[in-house]
This record gives sequence, C-alpha cells and structure tokens, in this order.
Amino acid sequence: MEVKIAKTAGFCWGVRRTVDKVMEVADHASGPVVTLGPIIHNPQAVARFREKGVGTVDAVGEVGDGTTVVVRTHGAVKEELDRAEGRGLEVVDGTCPYVKYPQAIAQRLSAEGYHVVIVGDANHAEIKGVISYSEGPCTVVKPGGPIPEIPAKKVAVIAQTTCIGADFEAVVGALALRHKEVRAVNTICNDTEERQADARSLAREVDAVVVVGGKNSANTRHLAEICREIQPRTWHVETEAELRPEWFTGCQVVGLSAGASTPDWVVEGVAGWLRGLHRPGTP
Amino acid sequence: MEVKIAKTAGFCWGVRRTVDKVMEVADHASGPVVTLGPIIHNPQAVARFREKGVGTVDAVGEVGDGTTVVVRTHGAVKEELDRAEGRGLEVVDGTCPYVKYPQAIAQRLSAEGYHVVIVGDANHAEIKGVISYSEGPCTVVKPGGPIPEIPAKKVAVIAQTTCIGADFEAVVGALALRHKEVRAVNTICNDTEERQADARSLAREVDAVVVVGGKNSANTRHLAEICREIQPRTWHVETEAELRPEWFTGCQVVGLSAGASTPDWVVEGVAGWLRGLHRPGTP
Repeated sequence: MEVKIAKTAGFCWGVRRTVDKVMEVADHASGPVVTLGPIIHNPQAVARFREKGVGTVDAVGEVGDGTTVVVRTHGAVKEELDRAEGRGLEVVDGTCPYVKYPQAIAQRLSAEGYHVVIVGDANHAEIKGVISYSEGPCTVVKPGGPIPEIPAKKVAVIAQTTCIGADFEAVVGALALRHKEVRAVNTICNDTEERQADARSLAREVDAVVVVGGKNSANTRHLAEICREIQPRTWHVETEAELRPEWFTGCQVVGLSAGASTPDWVVEGVAGWLRGLHRPGTP
Repeated sequence: MEVKIAKTAGFCWGVRRTVDKVMEVADHASGPVVTLGPIIHNPQAVARFREKGVGTVDAVGEVGDGTTVVVRTHGAVKEELDRAEGRGLEVVDGTCPYVKYPQAIAQRLSAEGYHVVIVGDANHAEIKGVISYSEGPCTVVKPGGPIPEIPAKKVAVIAQTTCIGADFEAVVGALALRHKEVRAVNTICNDTEERQADARSLAREVDAVVVVGGKNSANTRHLAEICREIQPRTWHVETEAELRPEWFTGCQVVGLSAGASTPDWVVEGVAGWLRGLHRPGTP
C-alpha cells in the first residue's frame, strides 16, 4: 500500500534537544542518572533510555545523593527543582525552551497582578510545572470545557504548548468580554501549529490516517482528533503491533502522522508494516 | 395597543452629563457657544440646542476668538483640542468618561509598543478621537468584517464603547492566534451592554419592536440589529412621524427601546403614538 508520511512527523526540535542531552549525560555521569517523570511521552523511547541505565522517578525525594536529576521536556514543578538544588544534587535542565516561555509568562504576569488562565489539561506535567511558577492564583480551562467564573479584573491567558489553536481562540475571546483586561500570550509552539496544519492537509488527501505516538502524549492525541474530524478512518497507535489489516480495506493511500515525541525508528516501523500490506484484490 | 418600554431606554449617564453641562454653559457664557460636531447623535436634541443658541462646527478653525468650544460626548481629535488651547479659547470637555478610557488606553499601550486595534467604525467621531491619542500605528477593524494582516508582535485591542460584545470577542480571539501577545481591554461601556441585554429580552416578549434614536447613532443602530435578529418586525425611527399603522397589524404588545442619545420626550412621543393605535378588529 502507498504510504504518505507527513513531513513534520516525528521528534520536534525541543524533544530532539532533550533526548540528545540525556544521552550525553548518561554517557558521562559518574553516578546514577534519573529523569523527573518520563523524559518524553513515548513508552518505546523511555524503554530505550532504561536500557541505557537512565531511570525515572516521580519526586526528588526518591533519589540518593550523587544522583544526576534530569528535568524532562515538559519541565518540572518549581518546588521539586528547589528541593534538588537544596540537596546539592546535579540538575540537568532538559525543559524545552517553548515550555520555559509559558513558565516565565505565568511568573511575570502573576507578579504584575494578573490572574493566570491556562488553556490545557490540569493533569499534564507541563501544566503542573507552569502553575508552579505563578505567584498568584491560576485557573486551568479545559479546551472545549466550561469557563469558570474568575473573580479578577485582569487575567492573563496562556496555552499548553500543544493546544489546538481554535480552543485557545475561543477561551481568549470569551474572557475578553467578561474581564476588564485580558492579556493573551500565544504560547502554542510553532512546531505544534505546523504539525497540526500538516496533519490536516494530509488527512484530506488519503483514504485512512495512522497517527503514531504515545497514548499519554497530548500532542499526539490532538493530531488524532484533528485528523479524525476530516478522515473518520483515523487510528492512533504506539507501534505497528497494534495495526490490523482490516482497518485498511479498500484503501489505496494511507497517511502517516506522528507526535513530537515519537522516535523516527517507531515511525519507520509503522510505515514499513503499512507498505508491506497488500491491498485486497491484489496479489 | 400595549407598549412595553425597555427600562434602559433613553439617555445614558454619560449623555445626560454632557447635555446638562452644555445647558449650563449656554446659560452662563458671555460669548458664543459651539460644539465640535453634533453634541449627541440625535437630530431632535441637537435642534433644541440650536434654539438655545448653541451652534455646531466641524473644526476649531471655524470659530472666532472669545467662543466657548464644547467637546461632545464622543470626544474630539486631540489636534483640534490642542489648536483650541493654542488659541486661548475656553474649552469645556463634555467627553464621556467611558470614551476617555479607550483614548487613554490607546495612548498608554501605543507608548508601550503595542499596535492598537480598535473594533468599530473608522468613520465614527469616537473612533477618530481615539485614534488621535495613539502614539503609534492603529488599525480599525469593522465588526464582522475581515481582519487585515497587522505586522506587529504585540497588539492591543479595544472596542468602540457601543460595540456588540460578540464582535469584540471574535476579533480578540482571532488576533490571539495570529500575534505573540494580545492585550485586550474591554472598553464597551456597561450602559451599552445592559441596554443591549435589555433590548434582547424585550424583543423575545413582544410582537414587534420600535427602536427610537438618531439614524446616525451607532448604539441605536446596534440595538435595532440585535432586536431584528430575534424579532424580524423591528423598526428604527427617529420620531413618531415615521411610524405606519400597518407595521403593527396583528400585534398585541409592542416593545420600545431607545438609544443612549435619545431624549425622554422623543421616547414618550413614540410611546404615546403607539398607545393610541387601535388594534385591527377592536373599536
């Protein structure tokens, strides 16, 4: 079967940067190396790191002295970093600069008296990190969900870096009517926007779409949502092991998109499986 | 016929304030008194001022020395005020405080490097005045119209005081996606919002709506638009002289709303005409 791979599929600049950093640290550290939470939201990539001796912990309290603590792409909660520094542990900051940006905005605008509103998922590591940098009250608004009453004249609105543009637009617009001043800083990363635009046009050109990436990856899930709106035959898988031939009955061309945290070798594995699939009726 | 009058119909606080101020000036001035442009957008009210000897000019250049120049509710262009002060003329500022607010915001945020975007009518006196206070480039976006490309990272968005909320919301939302930072200050005046909400609920309860006010009054025209969306039998008139009995065939209750610049006596004239109208089939 013919496979069209989105040109933006696979690691974004920020993920590649962090992954390279962790590899380097793992090669040179004298003591144990751990990441605070999974380094990226891709179980296959995390497994490879584990093979290289890089562990994963949830909190600084779990590690012994002499451990190198790596902050993952999504950033970390400020208090955890303070704790690591307080203990004299070596901290390697792998936070994506595009995630550092909303952290800095939350800190600066909360200090200026704005109530910080974040359009995103309150349970996502990135958002927990951003909240921890705010010096005042924060409200997380779930995309497409209701917007609670916020008792503030001035609100600052930022977005999870992987937020869908239309969701940010809707929240900013609605708040502009409710509050005297709304200061919206578009913190959606360029890569996310390009990848989503790319997935959108790919979905229009093919008979089915496969989106590859961690089920726990917000940006991968959003890609699948976007594709499914255009092409209902959209499948979100982590590896080729989940694919089923019957999903592609009658398909001539399959589109392949992948999240920012999906390694190239995982994308290639899926592409190889799809290329090897004979279309029904062909020998 | 039964007539329901919106509780917010007629002069708003700002218009009443300016009208009272002009009356006082007219009673006590030693020389001629003129307003820069019609004092409010209501031909009937302006005619009454003319009877009291208060003239209307378009520019300070038209008046002689010793003239008292009154700035109307909608404000004036900064350069005209500077010209009047430069000539030593007495200036009475009748600008509504709710109009002074967007003027001040345009001045402050343009000085901070924001490109100022105003949601409103570029030909309206209020907007011409607001633009004149901006220290940098300004773009006026017509409600419901296209949003031009604006070559700026930071934009500040304000609204004409009489803008419909949903129009402001749409522009702010769209800009939040296009620009790195959008600082939206909701300059729609409370009176406008209440009056629009009031008209909306009135339109739902009646068989026809009459909106009373100057054809040149932006806020009155918006009230008519809002009512017409709910009740297609909506008529915008300046006085009872325009009303036609056949407009109300089959109606039992007529709603009456009026713009912020419509004098009570004009509202009462229309209400009286409607009350006197016999419903078809009744004696």
